[in-house]
Amino acid sequence: MASPTAPFRVALLGVGTVGRATADSLVRDAGRLAEAAGRPIELAVIAARTPARLQGLALPAGTQVLADPHAAVEVPGLDAVVELMGGDSPAGEIVEAALRAGRSVVTANKHLLAARGQALETTARQAGARLRFEAAVGGGTPVLRVCASDLAAVRIECVRGVINGTTNWILDAMERDHLGAGAALAAAQVAGYAETDPSFDVDGIDAADKLVILVRLAFGTWISPAAVARIAVDGPGAGRPGIRGVEATDVAAAEARGHRIRVIAEARRTAAGIVASVVPREIDPDDPLARAHGIGNVVVFEGEPAGTVMVAGPGAGGPATAAAVLADVAALARGEGSTWAGSAAAAVGLLATEAAR
Amino acid sequence: MASPTAPFRVALLGVGTVGRATADSLVRDAGRLAEAAGRPIELAVIAARTPARLQGLALPAGTQVLADPHAAVEVPGLDAVVELMGGDSPAGEIVEAALRAGRSVVTANKHLLAARGQALETTARQAGARLRFEAAVGGGTPVLRVCASDLAAVRIECVRGVINGTTNWILDAMERDHLGAGAALAAAQVAGYAETDPSFDVDGIDAADKLVILVRLAFGTWISPAAVARIAVDGPGAGRPGIRGVEATDVAAAEARGHRIRVIAEARRTAAGIVASVVPREIDPDDPLARAHGIGNVVVFEGEPAGTVMVAGPGAGGPATAAAVLADVAALARGEGSTWAGSAAAAVGLLATEAAR
Repeated sequence: MASPTAPFRVALLGVGTVGRATADSLVRDAGRLAEAAGRPIELAVIAARTPARLQGLALPAGTQVLADPHAAVEVPGLDAVVELMGGDSPAGEIVEAALRAGRSVVTANKHLLAARGQALETTARQAGARLRFEAAVGGGTPVLRVCASDLAAVRIECVRGVINGTTNWILDAMERDHLGAGAALAAAQVAGYAETDPSFDVDGIDAADKLVILVRLAFGTWISPAAVARIAVDGPGAGRPGIRGVEATDVAAAEARGHRIRVIAEARRTAAGIVASVVPREIDPDDPLARAHGIGNVVVFEGEPAGTVMVAGPGAGGPATAAAVLADVAALARGEGSTWAGSAAAAVGLLATEAAR
Repeated sequence: MASPTAPFRVALLGVGTVGRATADSLVRDAGRLAEAAGRPIELAVIAARTPARLQGLALPAGTQVLADPHAAVEVPGLDAVVELMGGDSPAGEIVEAALRAGRSVVTANKHLLAARGQALETTARQAGARLRFEAAVGGGTPVLRVCASDLAAVRIECVRGVINGTTNWILDAMERDHLGAGAALAAAQVAGYAETDPSFDVDGIDAADKLVILVRLAFGTWISPAAVARIAVDGPGAGRPGIRGVEATDVAAAEARGHRIRVIAEARRTAAGIVASVVPREIDPDDPLARAHGIGNVVVFEGEPAGTVMVAGPGAGGPATAAAVLADVAALARGEGSTWAGSAAAAVGLLATEAAR
């Protein structure tokens, strides 16, 4: 093992919005990051499938630039892989292989974690590798570590949150500017807050993925994203997924009652097991989730004996999300464990897996 | 070093409200705590200067009960000391001696940390001991780790919070029940939220102590509690410390303007250094701090590039505060470092101290 003051060498995979901001901060904030990590963080290699995206980025002289992420993780002497490519493939294979080789991984890839988190956790535990993913939920809002570590001694009964910035921005625009659903979506696309194909956000898929990750940390169980209800039985937009069915008239009617409509991701421990949903709800303005504005995220944990703990912050944005990625990198450099360290795990028998190795 | 699955043996000093709740949870939540810690937490010894306070507490068969806290920390094979006696002495000497001996310490003692934090940190770094104190600020609200670790990559410019439950409860009562200051204080005393001598809370001393701890983690500097301004130059209660000068007419006038009065603890990075104060302020209801009700705490961090991150939760209460204490114990058992690990430290030369040893 390297000396604690030797540089902590990372491979950064992907130079999209978050990847660029991460590379940028690694250079600009090197002093602060070294303090946080207890040793310098070195950007050993960066993998950019589209090298043009590196333009304008001031990389350190020693940083290797490679087009192939598979080659990047083979660079000798790496301490951690930071996967910010997104998507299931090849990100999934690369993360899996790195963990299998006992290497630490930081990822913001919520879709990958929701789809394959249990397998990745099992691999990491068997190989003694660490996997951190704070940026996968809440962007720059510290949701996961609060749940797993700070509330480690709390029996969490319920997690509720506004965890998709796009749909929240759209509902804000419908309310504030009295736009119809279509016009609000178009405005979000123009503002860069919604994709050309917005179904991931609008249908609640993105929030459901994030809820799967929250459920793992709050309740110790990996559930299937398909088990998260995304079609409301009643209330605004009932019968259609996500906010597809929310009309301007629903927003106006809620407003007339002094209420707001927010997309609420909620998971609750019940006698029949964990119940999870992502659906639009009309809520009271005193509800902490009513305070989520624009792309802001708010998550509330209800538990015994801590009562209610709330965290709010920027749910998206390159620099804010990069700060969460880099907090994970610093934690790994200090020798801390996986994001799930501290959280309950017995429900899926993962502790038994780990104990058996 | 003991095997990672050997019990993590703690000495618990003090059986006041938080100490009792901690002992209780160590027994009742043993399974969850073992998961969080990665190994069983064993209550090896408990020090109770007033043994009658142990009545009704179901202690494990193997737990030693001692009246003398000095003797308790000498029990062989301890992994950590949990100091919940409060006060400066003998708590200060015991914590100091434990750290000097290289032993890990968890404390909720904000007054001790504010008065002697820099010396304790120096001792801990020189001895290679770990000191954690999440419960010292915010009770069951995860404020310190969020600041130090989750925002490690963020340059914090300002910390603002409502961090004293007693004065907040009093202001709530003045507003809600139209009580005068004296009647509201009396009601708080009857409800158990204020001491017979309430000056620690009412004069802003408790909040100033907590702000000193927040400043260390946000800005890397230990400041003197005396450097925290507790007398407002203008606004409600100006000219007197804390809420001493806030009258029912101030609360009514604020209400007439649609505002609320809260005691705001604030520290800000300025060109002239760090400016810190604990004073009553009339604030807009949209200010997140206006949402602090009763003994609830709210802390807001403003920084670059994360924007604004808010944390809210129960600011007091035995079980909630005990949960924060036990999250620290679990973190130590997993091998994590001190509460300041991850936070900036260069400003006071502490990193140099550590590097020199």
